[in-house]
Amino acid sequence: MARQQARRKLVSNELLEHAARLFAAQGYANTSFQDIADSMGISRPALYHYVSNKEEILAALVQDVLERVVEILQEESAREDLAEDERVVAAFRRIVVNNARNTTRFRLLDRSEPDLPAEIAAMHQQARRTVLALLTRMIEQAVEAGRFRPLPARTVALALLGMANWVAWWYRADVDADPGEVADVLVEVALSGVRRGADRTVEPGPWAALMLLKEDVAHLETALSSALDTDAP
Amino acid sequence: MARQQARRKLVSNELLEHAARLFAAQGYANTSFQDIADSMGISRPALYHYVSNKEEILAALVQDVLERVVEILQEESAREDLAEDERVVAAFRRIVVNNARNTTRFRLLDRSEPDLPAEIAAMHQQARRTVLALLTRMIEQAVEAGRFRPLPARTVALALLGMANWVAWWYRADVDADPGEVADVLVEVALSGVRRGADRTVEPGPWAALMLLKEDVAHLETALSSALDTDAP
Repeated sequence: MARQQARRKLVSNELLEHAARLFAAQGYANTSFQDIADSMGISRPALYHYVSNKEEILAALVQDVLERVVEILQEESAREDLAEDERVVAAFRRIVVNNARNTTRFRLLDRSEPDLPAEIAAMHQQARRTVLALLTRMIEQAVEAGRFRPLPARTVALALLGMANWVAWWYRADVDADPGEVADVLVEVALSGVRRGADRTVEPGPWAALMLLKEDVAHLETALSSALDTDAP
Repeated sequence: MARQQARRKLVSNELLEHAARLFAAQGYANTSFQDIADSMGISRPALYHYVSNKEEILAALVQDVLERVVEILQEESAREDLAEDERVVAAFRRIVVNNARNTTRFRLLDRSEPDLPAEIAAMHQQARRTVLALLTRMIEQAVEAGRFRPLPARTVALALLGMANWVAWWYRADVDADPGEVADVLVEVALSGVRRGADRTVEPGPWAALMLLKEDVAHLETALSSALDTDAP
């Protein structure tokens, strides 16, 4: 019985992988149940043994992709051994690597959005909101701890997600560096930017000094509102 | 005659806008020529007056979207009044604003890739390669000029394009800040990163934030006194 379940799971994984590749390549609407069976080298009746329709496969794929990202964010945000900024970095790094390793599924997810049945579409939207909310909160905490600059956390979260998600659209294992190396570069850009000497010993002159001041006033505002547990007036 | 051409162009633009919205919402494959006519409130024969089929509309849309980005990169990379890093920043900023203003078309472009006829798909791939090559070259030049850190230029270009392209997937004019403000935040992240400089990392809480402020006031004081005989920008 256990062996039969294990085998079922194995075939399901293979099925998802084959279906994802077909959906991504030719579109969900253009892919038939027969195409999926053909690509796996099995008969249509044999495929029905595992899933009853195309929608069921798509639902499983959609759930799979974002659930992994939510998991990463939950795990890293709970790490007591890391400072607030390090948690963001660790999560961001893992998401980039995850996306580079699952390009087909991510592309599929984006492409099949118009084809998603209402229930699955709602689930997908909810997962996207969860990802954004978790990452935004982690960034806010790093700002409150004085480790990130006081930039608008939601926009910063979307900037990081953009860098990470885009990886699924360009990364090719046969051309690009190892996912870990790609992640290192993206972490560098996200953390320190591309500008040389991007530390805080900035240009001389009063205008640069004023910029520093404005940044710290914003920082004081964040610190005060979290200390007093109220929003800025 | 000129008036007729102008009217034709006006209708074409409206046609593209309506078609883009339908393709993005329900998928290219699921959108009929009749749907497009309906959405414009004209008859199918009237629509045939402007285009002969759905493919022709898709081709025009695809060409339109990336051509604009290529134009921006070409214009900014040729600017003699800007330093190498400033050219990258100016181009990046304009691309972000452009994407925030054309979210429908960008989403359509991504989604319809599996539906693109071979010729249009090839054109699209070529445009994508041109965008990446132009931006990569601009980043290399900024690195060579000692203004950007020596990170792998192609990966950095893809990181910037990721941030900019993702805007088309999340930006909503009714919810988010002005495209210019969003662009400012993304430029900040891309240029300087989210981390506070090592020398400026501080303890959490308002008192530490106040210490930073006092430090900056002292800094401004020094800067001002040495700048008293220089001109304001």
